[in-house]
Amino acid sequence: MADPTGIEALIELMARLPGLGPRSARRAVLVLLKKRGQMMAPLAQALAEVALSAKDCQICGNISTGDVCPICANPARAIGEICVVEDVADLWAMERGQVFKGRYHVLGGTLSALDAVGPDELGIPRLVGRVAEEGAQEVILALNATVDGQTTAHYIADALAGTSVQITTLAQGVPIGGELDYLDDGTIGAALRARRRL
Amino acid sequence: MADPTGIEALIELMARLPGLGPRSARRAVLVLLKKRGQMMAPLAQALAEVALSAKDCQICGNISTGDVCPICANPARAIGEICVVEDVADLWAMERGQVFKGRYHVLGGTLSALDAVGPDELGIPRLVGRVAEEGAQEVILALNATVDGQTTAHYIADALAGTSVQITTLAQGVPIGGELDYLDDGTIGAALRARRRL
Repeated sequence: MADPTGIEALIELMARLPGLGPRSARRAVLVLLKKRGQMMAPLAQALAEVALSAKDCQICGNISTGDVCPICANPARAIGEICVVEDVADLWAMERGQVFKGRYHVLGGTLSALDAVGPDELGIPRLVGRVAEEGAQEVILALNATVDGQTTAHYIADALAGTSVQITTLAQGVPIGGELDYLDDGTIGAALRARRRL
Repeated sequence: MADPTGIEALIELMARLPGLGPRSARRAVLVLLKKRGQMMAPLAQALAEVALSAKDCQICGNISTGDVCPICANPARAIGEICVVEDVADLWAMERGQVFKGRYHVLGGTLSALDAVGPDELGIPRLVGRVAEEGAQEVILALNATVDGQTTAHYIADALAGTSVQITTLAQGVPIGGELDYLDDGTIGAALRARRRL
């Protein structure tokens, strides 16, 4: 193509990002090339800074720019509630909900015999230790409603069974704005079983 | 969200790229965060290098890492043929076709009274100069088949009318793999008018 050296290599790197293929990566690089000063240089700098400073939070596993993430470092966040999520993306999604005021524990995946992911890889013993150390009253299992997610949730519930902590899970039902006609049968069944008085 | 400083700013910068919105930018940044060493650092470096080294080619207007682009610097490319394109993206598209073996002239847009883009902004006098200097035999107008593109093509043809250079334009017709049923009426009409003997 135009330049086999730097620009071509940049397009290949961009094309590896999720949501961008070779074509859209080329288009994105062209826009960056045309706005070298306003867009390309700041993006390069932001990437370099985050690549250097981003770390896994030593307490919860969230990714941020420091040893302890802003959520764990925030004294206003209740220390008695731990929300267990599979992934940092799920933590961000929970934060967007702006309802939960406790802290998190990021597993980094789900139990999987096929992929040789056991309780130690997910830091489940560390979670059990945190519950005891922090004197948590409630562990909220906010795992995905998939088979792997629910298997992991049950394993964590078993691991915490000997302690006095309360174990809860997210409610299942009709999503806000959801139309019954478009919902799957399992969700409708779950919503009906968990029906409540108005 | 998770971290109001570096990561949040990076997501905002990424979301400005074409093809990425706030959601997909967040997803892309998460993947980069998880592969800080293998993906994020190399991407930051590639962007910084290209931002520093990318330049508009002094001869044709292509963007590359040098004063003269690899196409203009290549002695194997015929000096007698100049292909006029609107944009660097069009030049790259022509190069992917791997048929044209001459050189290019990138206008950087089309004539537009509304946007105050005149012949000087598009470097049309420079093109006329190049035709004389390089002794070009053919100028191929590979402009988009839009009203603005065709207006610009006619202006360039008029500007070169006094010289002996041959002016050609890309053929219009049915695209390779195209189905007649899905083609617009204008294309079918153009293909029929330009029909040729088998």
